[in-house]
Amino acid sequence: MSGGYGQPALPDKNRVAVLQNIAHKMRVHIVNMTDASGSGHPTSSSSAADILSCLFFHVMHYSVEEPRHGSSDRFVLSKGHACPVLYAAWCEAGLLSKEHILTLRKPDSLLEGHPTPRQNYIDVATGSLGQGLSIAAGMAYCGKYFDKASYRVFCIMGDGETAEGSVWEAAAFSSHYKLDNLVAIVDVNRLGQSEATALGHSVDVYKARYDAFGWNAIIVDGHDIMAVCKALLTAATTKDKPTALIAKTLKGKYFPGVEDLDNWHGKPLGKQSGPALEAVKALITDNGPHGLSPRPIKDDAPKITFPKVQLCEPPKHTMGEKIATRKTYGEALVKLGKNYSRIVALDGDTKNSTFAITYKNCCPERFVECFIAEQNMVGVGIGLGCRARNIVFVSAFAAFFTRAFDQIRMGAISQTEVNFVGSHAGCSIGEDGPSQMALEDFAMFRTIPGAVCFYPSDAVSAERAFELAANHRGVTFTRTSRPATAVVYENTETFEIGKSKVLRKSDGDKVTVVGAGVTLHEALAAHKTLQAEGINIRVVDAFCLKPVDKALMVECGKATGGRIVTVEDHYFEGGLGEGVAAAVAEDGGVKVHRLAVTGIPRSGPAALLMEDYGISANCIVKAVKKMLA
Amino acid sequence: MSGGYGQPALPDKNRVAVLQNIAHKMRVHIVNMTDASGSGHPTSSSSAADILSCLFFHVMHYSVEEPRHGSSDRFVLSKGHACPVLYAAWCEAGLLSKEHILTLRKPDSLLEGHPTPRQNYIDVATGSLGQGLSIAAGMAYCGKYFDKASYRVFCIMGDGETAEGSVWEAAAFSSHYKLDNLVAIVDVNRLGQSEATALGHSVDVYKARYDAFGWNAIIVDGHDIMAVCKALLTAATTKDKPTALIAKTLKGKYFPGVEDLDNWHGKPLGKQSGPALEAVKALITDNGPHGLSPRPIKDDAPKITFPKVQLCEPPKHTMGEKIATRKTYGEALVKLGKNYSRIVALDGDTKNSTFAITYKNCCPERFVECFIAEQNMVGVGIGLGCRARNIVFVSAFAAFFTRAFDQIRMGAISQTEVNFVGSHAGCSIGEDGPSQMALEDFAMFRTIPGAVCFYPSDAVSAERAFELAANHRGVTFTRTSRPATAVVYENTETFEIGKSKVLRKSDGDKVTVVGAGVTLHEALAAHKTLQAEGINIRVVDAFCLKPVDKALMVECGKATGGRIVTVEDHYFEGGLGEGVAAAVAEDGGVKVHRLAVTGIPRSGPAALLMEDYGISANCIVKAVKKMLA
Repeated sequence: MSGGYGQPALPDKNRVAVLQNIAHKMRVHIVNMTDASGSGHPTSSSSAADILSCLFFHVMHYSVEEPRHGSSDRFVLSKGHACPVLYAAWCEAGLLSKEHILTLRKPDSLLEGHPTPRQNYIDVATGSLGQGLSIAAGMAYCGKYFDKASYRVFCIMGDGETAEGSVWEAAAFSSHYKLDNLVAIVDVNRLGQSEATALGHSVDVYKARYDAFGWNAIIVDGHDIMAVCKALLTAATTKDKPTALIAKTLKGKYFPGVEDLDNWHGKPLGKQSGPALEAVKALITDNGPHGLSPRPIKDDAPKITFPKVQLCEPPKHTMGEKIATRKTYGEALVKLGKNYSRIVALDGDTKNSTFAITYKNCCPERFVECFIAEQNMVGVGIGLGCRARNIVFVSAFAAFFTRAFDQIRMGAISQTEVNFVGSHAGCSIGEDGPSQMALEDFAMFRTIPGAVCFYPSDAVSAERAFELAANHRGVTFTRTSRPATAVVYENTETFEIGKSKVLRKSDGDKVTVVGAGVTLHEALAAHKTLQAEGINIRVVDAFCLKPVDKALMVECGKATGGRIVTVEDHYFEGGLGEGVAAAVAEDGGVKVHRLAVTGIPRSGPAALLMEDYGISANCIVKAVKKMLA
Repeated sequence: MSGGYGQPALPDKNRVAVLQNIAHKMRVHIVNMTDASGSGHPTSSSSAADILSCLFFHVMHYSVEEPRHGSSDRFVLSKGHACPVLYAAWCEAGLLSKEHILTLRKPDSLLEGHPTPRQNYIDVATGSLGQGLSIAAGMAYCGKYFDKASYRVFCIMGDGETAEGSVWEAAAFSSHYKLDNLVAIVDVNRLGQSEATALGHSVDVYKARYDAFGWNAIIVDGHDIMAVCKALLTAATTKDKPTALIAKTLKGKYFPGVEDLDNWHGKPLGKQSGPALEAVKALITDNGPHGLSPRPIKDDAPKITFPKVQLCEPPKHTMGEKIATRKTYGEALVKLGKNYSRIVALDGDTKNSTFAITYKNCCPERFVECFIAEQNMVGVGIGLGCRARNIVFVSAFAAFFTRAFDQIRMGAISQTEVNFVGSHAGCSIGEDGPSQMALEDFAMFRTIPGAVCFYPSDAVSAERAFELAANHRGVTFTRTSRPATAVVYENTETFEIGKSKVLRKSDGDKVTVVGAGVTLHEALAAHKTLQAEGINIRVVDAFCLKPVDKALMVECGKATGGRIVTVEDHYFEGGLGEGVAAAVAEDGGVKVHRLAVTGIPRSGPAALLMEDYGISANCIVKAVKKMLA
């Protein structure tokens, strides 16, 4: 039986011996690397060594010269702490020298304590557990449905990490979309960090769970080269289902005095190193070069380059026209998607609220329904974006991105370029109540290194925010609004990352009021009220909350008597107000009074809530007068 | 067959008719309520009406007079959007009037769009899906292991929300701990918000998944009163396993032109209201009072009151002694636990790193191992804390609390009092690399309404921080440090929420440097270096990051020439620096220069990373000199 491209025939006896030798050589590397670094996870690495040998030297198609080739098989080490085994595999593949891998965890070495894509053979960072399978599922979705290519995706997970719910979100997603190009391998080595896992070596329970989640689950001895190869062959020939190998293994396999024992997690072998090296070296039957090369790539994935993506036509709105920016989201995606076919949108059963549905209706083949599983949705988005194969937009109620904060955080370490779009933010959503109100979304996204955060106030700026997002290489977050807001910009207005806009200005301005999104319109209303009373204020539309437009804030603050009022439909912490206050505090000389949501809002009409929780036009008027008093 | 206390015998034919009538009366309320509010979820409510009638009027033991009685059965509506059915049930139980429930979603009404504990019969807020089962599991754990009482826990979930991985974390936890006092009911009505769920009416798949996760899963027609009661009786008599009812239902059941149809999520019935009311009313065979009372409570849960919890002995450290505050965590819990038996600690397989293990070793029966499933761990913690039955501490690597941001956010709406303790924060953890470094934890926890955030710098302040946390009614977060830091406080020093400490002070101070945790020690080192060069700085230990000690910051800033430098092992956004800058910007006149981690750190020795990423003593010295230049 041969699996064709997907999987070669079973290895013969000689090849099995070579694969076993490679695994043992990897074990030697693992002991040496972690001894040299004085920290790391040799035992978690050793349990997976035989599996990696089978994958890297019998099954996977890849190129040592071009590890991120668009058509090569993908490999995700979800149990990132076991990275010594990964570095050892690439050493045996010829990419890394034996000297180089001894720099593990050292300053200036790229061989970090957990994998990051600072190394050219790693697509995504891992180390926060339970995230790899979602990313792998995203890669597999891309391979099957967008690239329609031959490459396959392999994901190694620890047994402990399968306690993470995100794994089961990914499992459900992968079977729903029949990702038969995806193989998960659970390294069931029984032992967690601080004690045995809940399921120990109950491989039958793991199998039952994967079966119930729609997978082809196969129990295998993870140290038996032939058995692993056989199961991988079955995986390659199974149609319409992903395959899970439930690999029974031993932590610290082949290390005397360590193997299968507790209290050996995350530490070098120390005085057990000598016996371990001796034992493993004694098992190696041939110390010469192993002579195995990766299987060749079938180069059938399309070549992708990202152009500058422009809206197919400029905004066509009428000043004062009321449109919810969440509605604009769907329309902007359509206008971007018409110009570029690799724009992909994901949503988790909120598409009729976020208006991702507009894009689905236009380009159903480029929309991925992820159901109510935000962690997996973000992981799939990261996977779809890997190797720069898609421009990815992921939408949800902004509050529900908090569900995936860890995935987003890790996404930044993974150098992902996913664009997040959150609707239904703040108390201005009204009757649905606080569980649905994002009031901490900017605090969250602003922490993401390199992230750009937009909060457009009208349809014109919203269209341009999405255009900027599509072209930004890094994470972006755009908050859209549920209520319809008036168009305040001409269709010809241009926008930039990190630049805010002055919307009202006079020579006699006493205070600068900075709003964004719904609160900009409150600021404009306050301007009108105050003007009628003879008090001029400058009104700034923040538009971009990160990076903050420090120069403009300082300039406006100084021009208006050293007084700024910020107003945001967000909690006081980590949003517009703190961002502006911290920016101007660098220079000093400008007072900043912040208006933000106080306490936990309740259900009610939006206008009433904005008044009750302190961010209405009326509240701005009072704050301005108080500042001037 | 009778289930004894847990479950009465099956209802006779007459009682079935009464229960069915009650369900239909609830449907009338549901239509009327959502019509009156003009928004809400009548169809998601109707699918669960028969189930709630069985629970509230045949199965559950509770008190209408005292809904949060310590011994009553618990009910969690995880599908919170279906709250009209919950309000309707309490109306039929006699707690809410027919007039009152028509205030649904109105301002000043407590009948919010999703349940919150502002109402006295609701323990926790729901509305972010997939969270209820973890909380219910925490309640059941408390009932079985801490209270050793008869009360049981019922949790209604939607089918769509079972896509959330947190549900499977909770499922695994509940079977692992044999929570046979827990019943989950999945309302499989087939339809999500924007389209059919991934599994539709495949109740066999749901059953297989719950079975595989170790539950007793029973498929039942969710509109058949007798079938539901029978399954609930089986649940009551099943030992050592939680039970899941997989209830096949129809969304909008009994509403003509609506039932089982798409596009009816989250909207009142409008012109279909008339036909719906007519149809449902025609099914009611008796319009008189139903005459059913709740089953009486067996009052066998211990009465709990929280005393002021004090360390059993004061700190006993030596000035200059080096101790990691994470180590102090375990020791402080032991000292608190000796004085009060209701202190409970949870950890997710990191107990040997967070040092929760110290408490486990001392009081194993008050420690709950939650394995690698942080969302569920937080939910269980919230459940354990409900009805003020335990003082709960939950520990993890601080970075991994990002996994549970949504649960923590909802926890605040639930008025939870859980104390979170995060270790391994910042680049100062060293070799493990960025995936393990919390650099956004304060940004996250500072957004939580009412949360208190501590960052102790030594063992004395750490002990007191945990003592303050144990006594604070609300969420607390304490960040502990991986490296050992020198004791800087006398054992007699006292600490308060919202109060920082001045550690170095002279009349000639030129700049105030505010540090916290590991960076306080960098600030002290910088003080020494600068002093040798004739530059005096004031050194402040922030200790409490929320609420920020604004008065002290302003006072110190003004006393030192209007100059503050903040330094934190955290990203620039949302942490110490922005908190201080925003606080002093209210008054103006003080410049704040922030030092924080720039970019994504890599693996390396802690001291080197602190230098490379801009937060070392050396960086402080430079920043002070630059500010004075």
